[in-house]
Amino acid sequence: MSFSELAGQLAAAGKGFYERGWVLGTSGNFSAVAGREPLRVAITESAAAKGSLTPDQILEIDGDGAVLRPAGARPSAETLLHLAIYRNRTAGAVLHTHSIHGTMMSDRAAADGGFVIHGYEMLKGLAGIDTHEHREWIPVLENSQNMRELAAEVETLLAEKPSLRAFLIRRHGLYTWGRDLAEATRHVEILEFLMEVLWRSSESRMSNAPFTAPGR
Amino acid sequence: MSFSELAGQLAAAGKGFYERGWVLGTSGNFSAVAGREPLRVAITESAAAKGSLTPDQILEIDGDGAVLRPAGARPSAETLLHLAIYRNRTAGAVLHTHSIHGTMMSDRAAADGGFVIHGYEMLKGLAGIDTHEHREWIPVLENSQNMRELAAEVETLLAEKPSLRAFLIRRHGLYTWGRDLAEATRHVEILEFLMEVLWRSSESRMSNAPFTAPGR
Amino acid sequence: MSFSELAGQLAAAGKGFYERGWVLGTSGNFSAVAGREPLRVAITESAAAKGSLTPDQILEIDGDGAVLRPAGARPSAETLLHLAIYRNRTAGAVLHTHSIHGTMMSDRAAADGGFVIHGYEMLKGLAGIDTHEHREWIPVLENSQNMRELAAEVETLLAEKPSLRAFLIRRHGLYTWGRDLAEATRHVEILEFLMEVLWRSSESRMSNAPFTAPGR
Amino acid sequence: MSFSELAGQLAAAGKGFYERGWVLGTSGNFSAVAGREPLRVAITESAAAKGSLTPDQILEIDGDGAVLRPAGARPSAETLLHLAIYRNRTAGAVLHTHSIHGTMMSDRAAADGGFVIHGYEMLKGLAGIDTHEHREWIPVLENSQNMRELAAEVETLLAEKPSLRAFLIRRHGLYTWGRDLAEATRHVEILEFLMEVLWRSSESRMSNAPFTAPGR
Repeated sequence: MSFSELAGQLAAAGKGFYERGWVLGTSGNFSAVAGREPLRVAITESAAAKGSLTPDQILEIDGDGAVLRPAGARPSAETLLHLAIYRNRTAGAVLHTHSIHGTMMSDRAAADGGFVIHGYEMLKGLAGIDTHEHREWIPVLENSQNMRELAAEVETLLAEKPSLRAFLIRRHGLYTWGRDLAEATRHVEILEFLMEVLWRSSESRMSNAPFTAPGR
Repeated sequence: MSFSELAGQLAAAGKGFYERGWVLGTSGNFSAVAGREPLRVAITESAAAKGSLTPDQILEIDGDGAVLRPAGARPSAETLLHLAIYRNRTAGAVLHTHSIHGTMMSDRAAADGGFVIHGYEMLKGLAGIDTHEHREWIPVLENSQNMRELAAEVETLLAEKPSLRAFLIRRHGLYTWGRDLAEATRHVEILEFLMEVLWRSSESRMSNAPFTAPGR
Repeated sequence: MSFSELAGQLAAAGKGFYERGWVLGTSGNFSAVAGREPLRVAITESAAAKGSLTPDQILEIDGDGAVLRPAGARPSAETLLHLAIYRNRTAGAVLHTHSIHGTMMSDRAAADGGFVIHGYEMLKGLAGIDTHEHREWIPVLENSQNMRELAAEVETLLAEKPSLRAFLIRRHGLYTWGRDLAEATRHVEILEFLMEVLWRSSESRMSNAPFTAPGR
Repeated sequence: MSFSELAGQLAAAGKGFYERGWVLGTSGNFSAVAGREPLRVAITESAAAKGSLTPDQILEIDGDGAVLRPAGARPSAETLLHLAIYRNRTAGAVLHTHSIHGTMMSDRAAADGGFVIHGYEMLKGLAGIDTHEHREWIPVLENSQNMRELAAEVETLLAEKPSLRAFLIRRHGLYTWGRDLAEATRHVEILEFLMEVLWRSSESRMSNAPFTAPGR
């Protein structure tokens, strides 16, 4: 696939997330591998409004985050997190969304360091999972503006927990990835769905009231 | 109607559900009768991302689930459930959605084996119902990855309860059907609507607080 | 305006409501005055799926509900309610939506016979209202399948309360109107918005807990 | 940029807000600077339905609110608030949305005079903010139909608090701005997102129940 085709696909994925309210404003950033050995990554430019994202806002960078084209462009502030993931996973695409439920779940679960998703059929949409009995741990990292430190934390986390498929940054949002953009997009949809289910189910559980359907 | 027209209609129905968030990721699957005696069914292929479903991801299978075309394609993992429904109902289409509210209601009502929907005008959109006084029972089956066992449970359920128009699988989603795709689509919309109403109404009932509109 | 233009506008209004989830399945029905003296009304046909509503599903009826064209078509089951409104208001269009919040509010407020909306700027979008201090009473009628009786109740209600701009039918939905389709559409949007605000505000009021923003 | 291009961009921004339900009915109004020295402002006409807003519903006014074109048109009732903002900020665009969460937050926080947003990564989308540790104060003004008085209050507020980027009017909605329309649009998206997060997070906090994910 040419770089411009890849850029078009990243912009289209971003548009879909924007329509669901998962990357409002300039939030969110997206990348995909454009070449390996040496690593070349297509990534959204810094501070792009995701509602009007176009393929020419997708830059090419190398494995150190240096911009190859266009000259003078500035990649996403979170480029180092994307590169940390590529170094530790055989991923073809990395997607970061910033949804209402991702923001709320990352805050609520921060004290426990994360949360488990267990028992949902939707888990089978994650690569390599073939039963709803699977337990998926989603860790939460504290937010920071020091991207070198945060990237180092991500590297440590991914190296120590080889089974991780995603993580949250507190009050910030979701990072997940896949072997290609289609798989990464699927992982976003599945995890955003499951975070909303967990959030809303636990809201109603808090009441401890027995369920009686009003129509009964 | 030609097979390709039918496939186009199934893909269009899926797109509508995707936009409402009812079949995110690879969740959901859809089928329609392409011929009778012998039974021929058009059905979504396994693991198709529903946000980009195209007519060529709709396969033709026979009444035993064997793929007739295209060669080598793999039908939805839940094909046996669709076929169990066609054997026990005079249905022209079977639709499975996987929404937030279907997932939550199936979990909450599992201990009771299901729930009743009663007293809502929207019930009149179900085939054969002409009053909101109707009581519709929606049973919940435990989820399983053993599709032969689950299909056998579905067959028993449908045979024993001839009035059933739908069922839920726990933490998984809704199955419903209709004499044709339009009717099945209508049943999905009605039941998804009513599950959201029941869920949200019972949340507020849990508080036992008297209602006072803030503007009063 | 020609009948076919009017039918096209009714279908377009319905599509907008469908996209917001206010007329799922076959719920909702819409009409507009096509001629006066004698009264001629354009109205949705019975049991039309609102997601695929087309102008040829809009019928022409007279003031008694008899179908003028196309021959043999059946108008909405709730035609008598539309006609009751045209007899008691100088309305150019009558719209009935069937939303989640309309269904829930009509149920919750039924014991009080309705509810007041007061103090919201959005009220100024109702025809003739120029301050948020306005108090709008929205009555709730019990649902019934006897359309003659229900239409008679509507006539009595509208005759007794000349200031009414809308009413709810319990567990069924909203009826509102306007001097033309644009005004009636605006009234739907405003009342659906305000019902959602009242519902959600009162949910959080039920807790009696002081508000502390999590980020404070 | 020509006036008609600017009008087209304002109408397009309004359409995006309408699709998210932030400017239903005739609510909301939008403006942008069309010229400086003397000030010329493009602004939505009074009572325009935002779902069908077209560029010819954007008027040109001078710094006193007098209509320059088209002759006889009436600008938004809240024109004086827009002009008060242009006098006190170096803004290129002012946007007023009227969302569910803006309406509810403005009501809940009115007793405190406003609320703080703190600790969210999304804050970095506000112009000049480079850390989630930022504390953004959003004041709430009481609603009024006396636009001269309300505009005077806005002037005082903005003059006294030079760091303000937005304010709410109680049970009415959000006003925010930016150096151009793109920045103002981004501010709307960010603040609407954060108001929903605060509202929904505090709802669940009210319960004081420990969080246990259902799947754990």
